[in-house]
Amino acid sequence: MNELEKLFAESRKEVDSVLDKLIPQTEIEPSRLHEAIRWSIFAGGKRFRPALVLAVGNVFGASQNALLRTAAAVEMIHTYSLIHDDLPSMDDDDLRRGRETCHVKFDEATAILGGDALQNLAFQVIAQDETLTAETRIKLISELANAAGTPIGMVAGQQLDLEAEGKEISSKQLKNIHKYKTGAMISFSAQAGAIIAGADENEIESIGIYASKLGLLFQITDDLLDVTQTTETLGKTAGKDITAQKATYPSLYGLEEATKLAEKVYQEACGALEKIDKDTKILVALADFILHRKA
Amino acid sequence: MNELEKLFAESRKEVDSVLDKLIPQTEIEPSRLHEAIRWSIFAGGKRFRPALVLAVGNVFGASQNALLRTAAAVEMIHTYSLIHDDLPSMDDDDLRRGRETCHVKFDEATAILGGDALQNLAFQVIAQDETLTAETRIKLISELANAAGTPIGMVAGQQLDLEAEGKEISSKQLKNIHKYKTGAMISFSAQAGAIIAGADENEIESIGIYASKLGLLFQITDDLLDVTQTTETLGKTAGKDITAQKATYPSLYGLEEATKLAEKVYQEACGALEKIDKDTKILVALADFILHRKA
Repeated sequence: MNELEKLFAESRKEVDSVLDKLIPQTEIEPSRLHEAIRWSIFAGGKRFRPALVLAVGNVFGASQNALLRTAAAVEMIHTYSLIHDDLPSMDDDDLRRGRETCHVKFDEATAILGGDALQNLAFQVIAQDETLTAETRIKLISELANAAGTPIGMVAGQQLDLEAEGKEISSKQLKNIHKYKTGAMISFSAQAGAIIAGADENEIESIGIYASKLGLLFQITDDLLDVTQTTETLGKTAGKDITAQKATYPSLYGLEEATKLAEKVYQEACGALEKIDKDTKILVALADFILHRKA
Repeated sequence: MNELEKLFAESRKEVDSVLDKLIPQTEIEPSRLHEAIRWSIFAGGKRFRPALVLAVGNVFGASQNALLRTAAAVEMIHTYSLIHDDLPSMDDDDLRRGRETCHVKFDEATAILGGDALQNLAFQVIAQDETLTAETRIKLISELANAAGTPIGMVAGQQLDLEAEGKEISSKQLKNIHKYKTGAMISFSAQAGAIIAGADENEIESIGIYASKLGLLFQITDDLLDVTQTTETLGKTAGKDITAQKATYPSLYGLEEATKLAEKVYQEACGALEKIDKDTKILVALADFILHRKA
């Protein structure tokens, strides 16, 4: 097992264990709500964002213990956004992480409330993280809210994405949509690791650039996979961007140019790491993984 | 204008002004999202929860300035919950605060995202409140998350409420539903004022008891109004509890007994205030207002 595989295995195991402790058990009422949350969050996701929190935190010397709740929190925000995005009035998707989406398995009301509860819990677990000073918690909550909300975060990105369906948009608009929709939370995940470790402002800035490139890379490869892979490999409906007439990197640039763009963005991500005087090879490996991922 | 009318007028004016500053303007993209949020939050609500933050804060000597962002935050959480509760898959309501609900005026996706953004913003405005120490902000965020989430907060209460539709439930279950659904956020609003003012633990506890009684009183009178008032007076659909076969205080106890219960709970709320060595007559007036409200 190489270092990256070790990171992912560890991230999955430790973050899942923390998530299991933080999310109310199904024996606790309202059990249907807690079942729905657990159905969606324990669906075998890659835990990419938590892995990023851990990897950056490790690079800057934070203790594992200080990173785990924030790593769990970013996964909660990510899962809440998936639950809501899959709803009939949004992307209307039946399949996610290889199984029925939350509103199909349960019902729409439970899915909406499950997402609401997860967002709430994400802020709660950081606020109640006794391994961090109050100042660090406030900084994390403030940045998380910027990354997850509007006008420069995930909710804004999802709104812009829905509004762009069936419309011609420019490459600048497309870049903006993804910067907010996925980039902001990926940037936050990386920066959170640096904040917890007490990295200096220059380091946090360089990590921010690395992470925003990583987010863009993630989106380009996501768009490419939607075209090139099967539903079975992806664990979610393939080809749905075309069906929904979504503007994507392949639809805007063509498959070949979009692939070239991914390589360029990968180089830029690695370039940002060169300014950091630490051993960042795990972060290069993460970017490499995204560039070459198959699902 | 008596002291209570002054409190409400001030709460509306000052809190609305702070909300206007904190919520992105409609000129900022995604404008449709910000329009939807503003449509729902500036619909002329009573601002009862913010008024409670201000009233309790004033009783314990907090500066107005230190209270306003938290007062705005509780209104954001309240409005997000109304937007989501009104959705077709939840209570399916077309009318709220005398005008079209968010998903009717805009669309379901925008309503879901508008609610999501408001919840996020509520945590953000407290995290970024520079009039408070980091410790106070963390305490407020932590308590707000308890009150707004699951298993002992607002989201849990809404889930239990939906699950109870069309079923026979006990008076204990009904009490629990409302304790979570509306009581928790009303309690938080009152306790937040005391926390910001730096009240001691005994005072915060007494305020907690007062507020939980106030929350229960609020719910009983809400149920009574649904039966006794018209849609026009309420600004929301009257009689909908009966249509939805919801268990309510009048349906469980009858109109007369439910009215008596309201008076008893009012007395208990006032009793809790007697343990506080401050001038609490504005808080008695607030309870009195809820007991006798017509909408």
